Amino acid sequence: MEEQGRVLTVPEALVNRRATRRFDPNHPLSDDLLKRILGLAACAPSSTNLQPWRFLVVRTEKNRARLRACAFNQPKVTDAPVMVIVLGYKNAYETHLEPMLANRVELGAMTTDGAAEVKARVSRSFPNNPDLATWALRSSMLASMSMLVAAESLGVASAPMEGFDHARVKEEFGVPDDHIVCCLVALGHALATDPFPGRFGLTEVCYEEHFGQPWTLGEPETLL
Amino acid sequence: MEEQGRVLTVPEALVNRRATRRFDPNHPLSDDLLKRILGLAACAPSSTNLQPWRFLVVRTEKNRARLRACAFNQPKVTDAPVMVIVLGYKNAYETHLEPMLANRVELGAMTTDGAAEVKARVSRSFPNNPDLATWALRSSMLASMSMLVAAESLGVASAPMEGFDHARVKEEFGVPDDHIVCCLVALGHALATDPFPGRFGLTEVCYEEHFGQPWTLGEPETLL
Repeated sequence: MEEQGRVLTVPEALVNRRATRRFDPNHPLSDDLLKRILGLAACAPSSTNLQPWRFLVVRTEKNRARLRACAFNQPKVTDAPVMVIVLGYKNAYETHLEPMLANRVELGAMTTDGAAEVKARVSRSFPNNPDLATWALRSSMLASMSMLVAAESLGVASAPMEGFDHARVKEEFGVPDDHIVCCLVALGHALATDPFPGRFGLTEVCYEEHFGQPWTLGEPETLL
Repeated sequence: MEEQGRVLTVPEALVNRRATRRFDPNHPLSDDLLKRILGLAACAPSSTNLQPWRFLVVRTEKNRARLRACAFNQPKVTDAPVMVIVLGYKNAYETHLEPMLANRVELGAMTTDGAAEVKARVSRSFPNNPDLATWALRSSMLASMSMLVAAESLGVASAPMEGFDHARVKEEFGVPDDHIVCCLVALGHALATDPFPGRFGLTEVCYEEHFGQPWTLGEPETLL
């Protein structure tokens, strides 16, 4: 395992994380660190535990250059040693419900009756969901945030990216129509610390009890 | 500040977090802890730093009962002392771009020229985005995950919820049409530790270089 220094607490990692602008192209990411970050990302919660996220990990120079061409030629796509294309799998309920439930019963986390109940409920409700893309996006973005904060805690810089040509990414990397592209995540090491771009206070983003009703509790005394 | 014990590291919080099934209705959440959790959630990254998440915090018994009626009568909605309705604000670019950029310049994180450039780019691209709901959902789910992991690290149990009647929540809580309901988050203290429901291995959810190309790096040696 690569030397990492102290693993950060959650408040430290959330407060310190920046969307890295410039990655060091000469500083690779070890396999061990990459696997740990992806494994932690996959601990995210998901609807019915169906885990519809898929991580398409792009590391070769050639493929990062192909991805960069899909992402408005942003240099960080080739400077970062690892690019993760986060996908959302719309039909996870068709192929992954049974293995997920079997594992859950095996772990003692559910009875066989409980599993049968979930299976019946999913079979009733999922095929009628007119927007499985939104369904898959929700859980996959939870996993994306888990990836970002896990990376930060282990001393790895990251950048989430939304600006790219979705159709072209799908075409270049063979992503089928039952998957959506949720976002890209660059992972590596920063060349410089990016400045804090600011956040709105809770007074601006919180409401009490009803939409529009002002937030009266004030701001946190401390985040860290 | 309420007694919390040791603040967890990111790997600890991601691995230990469970979607809590049963909350202790007699164990409230202090204002200080709530503000800190929301403040940490608001550290999430967002597209153009527009922070389109809005947290509608429901704490009164009467309003939690109203929310429960919108959420298939699930007991956790009234058992948990705090329910957060996470909203996504579709038109954040119209009302919040200028104050965000002004703050960023003030913090020295951007030049006035840089801010003018961002403003021009947003004015060109955002009004043509045919799906601002998806745009707002992405960042708001990043903030939701930040909320869950922040809560866990501070000894607060949580449960993300997707099963509810979106239209009815909007109606009951006065949410206007330029906002979407992303998810609900219950916060409080667990009556019992929920069992680990299992996760697929990286071999199941990762691809290398191209969609469908098997993951050969294996599983992480350790997550914690």
